[in-house]
Amino acid sequence: MNILVTLNANYIKPLKVMLKSLFMNNENECFDIYLMHTSLKEEELESLNAYIARHGGRLFIVKMDDGCFQDAPVLLHYTKEMYFRLLAYKFLPEGLDRILYLDPDILVLNPVRKLYETELGDCLYGAAYHDKIPVKEINRLRLFPYEIDAYYNSGVLLMNLGQLRAQVDAQEIYRFVEENRMKLIMPDQDILNALYAKQIKSIDEKLYNYDARYYGYYKLTSNGACDMEYIINNTVILHFCGKRKPWGNQYSGKFFSLYKHYEKCAARMEFHRSPAFDSRWVHHPVQSVHNP
Amino acid sequence: MNILVTLNANYIKPLKVMLKSLFMNNENECFDIYLMHTSLKEEELESLNAYIARHGGRLFIVKMDDGCFQDAPVLLHYTKEMYFRLLAYKFLPEGLDRILYLDPDILVLNPVRKLYETELGDCLYGAAYHDKIPVKEINRLRLFPYEIDAYYNSGVLLMNLGQLRAQVDAQEIYRFVEENRMKLIMPDQDILNALYAKQIKSIDEKLYNYDARYYGYYKLTSNGACDMEYIINNTVILHFCGKRKPWGNQYSGKFFSLYKHYEKCAARMEFHRSPAFDSRWVHHPVQSVHNP
Repeated sequence: MNILVTLNANYIKPLKVMLKSLFMNNENECFDIYLMHTSLKEEELESLNAYIARHGGRLFIVKMDDGCFQDAPVLLHYTKEMYFRLLAYKFLPEGLDRILYLDPDILVLNPVRKLYETELGDCLYGAAYHDKIPVKEINRLRLFPYEIDAYYNSGVLLMNLGQLRAQVDAQEIYRFVEENRMKLIMPDQDILNALYAKQIKSIDEKLYNYDARYYGYYKLTSNGACDMEYIINNTVILHFCGKRKPWGNQYSGKFFSLYKHYEKCAARMEFHRSPAFDSRWVHHPVQSVHNP
Repeated sequence: MNILVTLNANYIKPLKVMLKSLFMNNENECFDIYLMHTSLKEEELESLNAYIARHGGRLFIVKMDDGCFQDAPVLLHYTKEMYFRLLAYKFLPEGLDRILYLDPDILVLNPVRKLYETELGDCLYGAAYHDKIPVKEINRLRLFPYEIDAYYNSGVLLMNLGQLRAQVDAQEIYRFVEENRMKLIMPDQDILNALYAKQIKSIDEKLYNYDARYYGYYKLTSNGACDMEYIINNTVILHFCGKRKPWGNQYSGKFFSLYKHYEKCAARMEFHRSPAFDSRWVHHPVQSVHNP
């Protein structure tokens, strides 16, 4: 299965924890991890490569340089990394037909195979929207006149690469950003929703993008069905949304002990045996496109 | 290492979870599990034996029958099982010099080797007391005139079998029970404290008997040092004290998600391959003593 991640140096540790949970709960699967980045150092990449190889996976590096989004507008507080997710399809090998993008602030608790094989038809993406009513309503008003029935979370995105290559136009995205500069709070997620909401196949948030902040809410609105037993045995992706992260200070939440457990498992693996260097490691862009 | 457990049929599932956590976090150790029981069925014992064998451990069954504590007084709400822990030394093989008793409402989060090798000298037991002041004070008053400086928790007991054989007298225990019938709330723990408190080597509760109900209390009284990071990486034994258990309904607590995770790991192992029957399994009392 193909997994896409995009990150900077601050997120290497959480990324390893996320990957550890993915590997531990998908023991009989093979993973090709595609990493889009701009500024990771050689030793960081080597450490990550060794870590993934130790778990039987392969790392492919997609180095993004300054030329990649030359004509893209930039917003005050955001770098061009905001375009990585939406335009990833341009930088991935032609041969790939789908890839699962995962944020690093995630734990994978159960097998991802079923999610990965979700029938997408002509849809561009598979994604979940968080069904808390106030959140939906705020985003609907904020992104008016774009019609938002559901505000999809872009932290877990199953990408239909063939359809993305056929249907998405980078210039349309850039125009949208230019025209809505002031409205954009979470730029890539906002773009995803404003431009592509109708081409997203909705997936169950309780299974595939469970927001770790809302245990009580999920449990209540499911009449108790979505309890801890259900989550641990069924939820595939637990997402630590929001500003406070379980690897930071001051965190406290229902899944804190579980996160720390996976963090320990990941750290243990760090200091395990160092494997032979994996020659399959690709250092340079798999496909380099300078002017999307 | 020798591990002692005593239980009835209601606790088989939690016992398997406890053992799973023990095995997972002590991968290079060999465990001999001694099980004292009165009423487990043949198929329950076989399932447990297979489960332990699958993890590379050995199960020894110590079947207790009606004759075992013939002259022991019985209390209204308690069966003779209250004596199992205190008189276990009589029913274990002469060759054993120490054994670690563990309650089934426990998760073992880290290696137990250091605890197991605690220097006990002439002490009968290694045990931790829970240092919450109101709890200590209530027990001191309740068990007066027996001097209680610390009220030890009997859920984790490192037993110095040689000293127990030399020093403990069953009749003294029975007399104590006769004379204090009305005062005893948690009989075996009360007996342990009233009769043997001065012969107990104190072990650190934060490491070896962390009461899962008091996360905030431990963190506060340690000036923040005993936080989730510390516990997951250092605490060896996490004890789900109290009436509400993480395998029951209505449970909610800091370590709920972690417990459910181990429960899933244990269940997974249940449905794994079924191994060859282990001929080392001992069906009958290792040593049968009918009138201690």
